[in-house]
Amino acid sequence: MTSSGAPAPSDPPPGLGDQGDPATRVGALSEAQLLAAFLPRLPQAAPEHGHDVGNGDDAAVLRIGDERVVVTVDTLVQDLDYRAVWPNGRVTLGHDVGFKGVAQNLSDLNAMAAHPVGLLVSLAMPPGTPVDWVLSLADGIADAVRALGAQGCTVAGGDLSGAREVVLTITALGRLDEAGPVLRSGARPGDEIAVTGRVGEAAAGLALLDAAVPAGTAQGTTGRERALVEELVLAQLRPRPPLGAGAVAARAGAHALMDVSDGLVRDGERLARASGVRVDLDTARLAPFADRLAPAAALLGADPLRWCLTGGEDFGLLAAFPPGTVPPGFTAIGSVADGPAELLVDGRPSPTTGWDHFAA
Amino acid sequence: MTSSGAPAPSDPPPGLGDQGDPATRVGALSEAQLLAAFLPRLPQAAPEHGHDVGNGDDAAVLRIGDERVVVTVDTLVQDLDYRAVWPNGRVTLGHDVGFKGVAQNLSDLNAMAAHPVGLLVSLAMPPGTPVDWVLSLADGIADAVRALGAQGCTVAGGDLSGAREVVLTITALGRLDEAGPVLRSGARPGDEIAVTGRVGEAAAGLALLDAAVPAGTAQGTTGRERALVEELVLAQLRPRPPLGAGAVAARAGAHALMDVSDGLVRDGERLARASGVRVDLDTARLAPFADRLAPAAALLGADPLRWCLTGGEDFGLLAAFPPGTVPPGFTAIGSVADGPAELLVDGRPSPTTGWDHFAA
Repeated sequence: MTSSGAPAPSDPPPGLGDQGDPATRVGALSEAQLLAAFLPRLPQAAPEHGHDVGNGDDAAVLRIGDERVVVTVDTLVQDLDYRAVWPNGRVTLGHDVGFKGVAQNLSDLNAMAAHPVGLLVSLAMPPGTPVDWVLSLADGIADAVRALGAQGCTVAGGDLSGAREVVLTITALGRLDEAGPVLRSGARPGDEIAVTGRVGEAAAGLALLDAAVPAGTAQGTTGRERALVEELVLAQLRPRPPLGAGAVAARAGAHALMDVSDGLVRDGERLARASGVRVDLDTARLAPFADRLAPAAALLGADPLRWCLTGGEDFGLLAAFPPGTVPPGFTAIGSVADGPAELLVDGRPSPTTGWDHFAA
Repeated sequence: MTSSGAPAPSDPPPGLGDQGDPATRVGALSEAQLLAAFLPRLPQAAPEHGHDVGNGDDAAVLRIGDERVVVTVDTLVQDLDYRAVWPNGRVTLGHDVGFKGVAQNLSDLNAMAAHPVGLLVSLAMPPGTPVDWVLSLADGIADAVRALGAQGCTVAGGDLSGAREVVLTITALGRLDEAGPVLRSGARPGDEIAVTGRVGEAAAGLALLDAAVPAGTAQGTTGRERALVEELVLAQLRPRPPLGAGAVAARAGAHALMDVSDGLVRDGERLARASGVRVDLDTARLAPFADRLAPAAALLGADPLRWCLTGGEDFGLLAAFPPGTVPPGFTAIGSVADGPAELLVDGRPSPTTGWDHFAA
């Protein structure tokens, strides 16, 4: 120790060293466990302070003056959220990263039945990053706004800085109409559970990208199979949340709404817990989704229904509607019942950890 | 090339490799040059779309419904924006990083004469980061909100993820009253240039942290010198923007307003260019600031006036007021004249690059 009370320079840098008891490092905790310790230390609003929704839903609602503003932030980290080069040889373009960053943030607004208004972009990257890659990322942001139908949503600001790997943080702001927001906590016994958007496709794309041998290149592969492979890979690299469907659900009177970022089982369980109800998914209703993925699953020897149940990052919507009110564009896939707050699949418990033991 | 059109896995990962022409890498460009190429590719609003201020000022103003929302984002990256362990042996606490992240973002709101309403926190960090360090960071966020007087500003959401180094991205949202916003582009010939908050202290603190031998520990150092050293180090680690002063400047009729994040010379030049005027700083008016830093400068053999002119990260405010209207709390340090958009110091050109040649 020096006289200033600081450790000597040879001490391990906090936040980098792996010395000491591994149990005291963040890697020993789940994100949920870490958040449970982190959040209570932060200044959070009591509802009477004029904040409608804080941490815990897809996005926050802040009352600013007379307006309710929906805000959310999400980060993409190289080699954690995507690979610069995938095992199958595919290179992640800047365009892909920009597109996905926008998609996952606008999905959070969609999940609150909010309309996108603006984005802030914070990009950190190594000095060796090709300029062309960064400009391609900007193009991916612009293309996502257009392709997802978020016209009028602009990039209002941001910053660029250095880092050891690419870290893209996007903040999205949205406005609500009279029908919104719809939270994940409002499902009631008797409701129907429904989805819209893609199910299982991003997971299929991830499995194809992670395959050491590029699928669809073997002799005898049909053109139709190759086209499906490319479509599923793009579902992973450039997911397409069904923007506008959140507002449709709100106007149809949805009791609960969230996006599917971590898979039907995990997110369905979150909806069940937040609402204090039992949610039961009916795999027979997922068959059309699984059938579409079957040719790709056959190439990898995978189970397409499992992709549908556990695959994340499609950014479709999961909603609970009063019986008989599921609007066009949504597919009923389950039901809500009184009982312990849990998720069932075909009437049986479905562990989200230890999913390997699930008999699909 | 494989048949799928992707490079083979042995090709260099984009965004990581330093192969090829260094001139095509982001490290060859300044942030301004990179932004000049990046921004035009993004969807940006024409003023008639209802956005008041886009990229280029301290924060953006987004019209959401009937409200004008001020938003800004800033990122702190370990080993770029701070050192886990400084050359003088000081360890950066999680508390320091959380505090500074909040301070620099709320400063951007202050620079728009906006009142803080909410924050979003995105934190990426290595799995080996001590849990205690992360919880200390949360405490630093909470303490900054309290200590800077941003009562009522809450953390509305955020996310935690993995990364190779600590990357903290904070988004701040604020509301305007009738007097705001005040942009950096409104200075007029005849205006007085004034500052409030600290000048040169964070730069002095940085120099002290970067010194291989801890200053203030030598025999013969007085208690008063040691106290000053600690105060200046804290000015770097936990800067204190004068929140509320932005609204004071707006009500006093300021023509132009910005925060001093990169030093008086660099930021003064930005104000001059944005306003299309000549700004002349009077170093005699900076003498009280320099005098306060003199004992620390003597310890390092440094020039305290240079800290005042070029030192960043104090997050004070720089404003242009109509003559005779500088409000209490602000110190007049210069004047605005017709002429080429440039910054002068005591009537002479002051290069922001090549500052080493400046004869203070």
